[in-house]
Amino acid sequence: MDLDVVFLGTAGSMPTAQRAPAALLVRRGGDRLLFDCAEGTQRQLLRSSVGLVDLPEIFLTHFHADHVLGLPGMLKTFSLRGRELPLEIYGPRGLVDLMSSLKRVVGKLSYELRLVELEPGDVVERDGYRLAAFAVAHGVSALGWSLIEATRPGRFDVAGADALGVPNGPERGRLQHGEAVTLADGAKITADQVVGPPRPGRKLVITGDTAPNETVVEAAWGAQVLVTEATFSEEERARARETMHQTAAQAADVAKRANVGLLALTHLSNRYFGPEIAREACEVFPETVVPRDFDVVEVPFEERGAPQLVKSGALHRREPEPVSSAPQ
Amino acid sequence: MDLDVVFLGTAGSMPTAQRAPAALLVRRGGDRLLFDCAEGTQRQLLRSSVGLVDLPEIFLTHFHADHVLGLPGMLKTFSLRGRELPLEIYGPRGLVDLMSSLKRVVGKLSYELRLVELEPGDVVERDGYRLAAFAVAHGVSALGWSLIEATRPGRFDVAGADALGVPNGPERGRLQHGEAVTLADGAKITADQVVGPPRPGRKLVITGDTAPNETVVEAAWGAQVLVTEATFSEEERARARETMHQTAAQAADVAKRANVGLLALTHLSNRYFGPEIAREACEVFPETVVPRDFDVVEVPFEERGAPQLVKSGALHRREPEPVSSAPQ
Repeated sequence: MDLDVVFLGTAGSMPTAQRAPAALLVRRGGDRLLFDCAEGTQRQLLRSSVGLVDLPEIFLTHFHADHVLGLPGMLKTFSLRGRELPLEIYGPRGLVDLMSSLKRVVGKLSYELRLVELEPGDVVERDGYRLAAFAVAHGVSALGWSLIEATRPGRFDVAGADALGVPNGPERGRLQHGEAVTLADGAKITADQVVGPPRPGRKLVITGDTAPNETVVEAAWGAQVLVTEATFSEEERARARETMHQTAAQAADVAKRANVGLLALTHLSNRYFGPEIAREACEVFPETVVPRDFDVVEVPFEERGAPQLVKSGALHRREPEPVSSAPQ
Repeated sequence: MDLDVVFLGTAGSMPTAQRAPAALLVRRGGDRLLFDCAEGTQRQLLRSSVGLVDLPEIFLTHFHADHVLGLPGMLKTFSLRGRELPLEIYGPRGLVDLMSSLKRVVGKLSYELRLVELEPGDVVERDGYRLAAFAVAHGVSALGWSLIEATRPGRFDVAGADALGVPNGPERGRLQHGEAVTLADGAKITADQVVGPPRPGRKLVITGDTAPNETVVEAAWGAQVLVTEATFSEEERARARETMHQTAAQAADVAKRANVGLLALTHLSNRYFGPEIAREACEVFPETVVPRDFDVVEVPFEERGAPQLVKSGALHRREPEPVSSAPQ
């Protein structure tokens, strides 16, 4: 089953010409989970290969303007399209209050909006995975999100089954599911003879905005991918502390201590272009990438290789960059 | 003095991959006047050659979500940059109420926000031009805006002045300003001997959303450029009536009856790409253009030629079009 993250917006607080503000789309099989919804997110989806699908659920990390101002327009667009499917929004304490203050600009919707406020430690169960909310340190009501897949059955040993005389039929399915089978010759075969130990699922952790914090190290422990913020570089460490953000080096230190597979940094201040943030983090934790908008991080099962960044530039159509031609 | 309109967002109600929702920037000399501020306008400015300048004033046509949802983010960005210059927002009745409902998401600003509610017939005076608010027909509190330049002095007849013996000095300036002068030889020269009749300034009219209406014909009378909406084509005429929008043919009929120089159509429904709207309008009024985002309409003084559309594609840098590459 495929699992990846589309970086729809990678700017911190203020957009730039290159980077839209915060939004991430997680795709797992047919599921589409949006994390944060900054101004312009509906159009970032339209401009991506994803398109503006009728997202069934949105997860918010916190309610600073640069993470939620895309909600009213997107909710409105869904309504103009005559959507009937309910939309669930999950977020920390304060979600109901936020949405009631946006009601005047959102207006009446064609579908039901379900608001779910969660606390750190709460879990949203899904088919094959769960989303666990954890505490981050941003000075406001805020949650990080950990997508944790269920343990997978062990690998089936085809050669071993052949050698034991297990026929190519439903017996193999039953063994794979942990049952024992009796063959035509009376031999009894148990699952552990042909099925390896259960294999762990994948873990993908998204923190939203946060200062370096032990709760993040704990939540991200052993994750294939940690997506976290690096609003600043070490030069601005004091400013990072003051605003409860973190530097690239601090984020890398968290990733190192959490023993993650890949660190993906986002929410860059408009001071930075990206490479300087990557350089700083890589000195502490070499497996770091700094995606640009529309880049994708793929998260394969462990036995199929390491997570990797796929640049959107790799497969793009070339189209004119808008630059108006009249005098300034 | 240059005068042009940068089309920052040309979509109606729902954005598309190609078109952002409503925003227009009028540039006249050093002045920058933003008309409407849909979601993503701050980033459309960043992506244009204009950049996100500290706009001193914003003019709103009405308060539907697809015309105002870019305000909170833009106001916030100005504040994060430490802006001190007050910002004036002009709009129809209901502006104060709208901004108070957005207060929670906007938060505290570093500068003063001045809200000015106007009625049809009200005028905002500027150096060398005025902005006159006029009634449109959209079923809600709404205003169109007419930028009307002051009359210019007549053309100075250099050859005539030479023939009359007017020296190349301050006398010519006084004559240009309408005064009479007495030459060294005692001859008295009056302004009308060397200065032609006063020349009209330019008129640029922006309606925002509206059904076809006589108030628009009147306000747009003789304008160099009329920027109005063509949300629909004639096929959707009933839908246009129902929603108080207009079709391309109806907009063209207004332009024809108002005897304007150029008609620029915007606010297209996402059903349309542009050329079909242009074709329909051109059958009624051939001097019609349908700008795309970042296109510019230049409005020269009458004696220097007709207004024209400058495609943003004409001078663009080529940059990758974002298309994420991972499986959908």
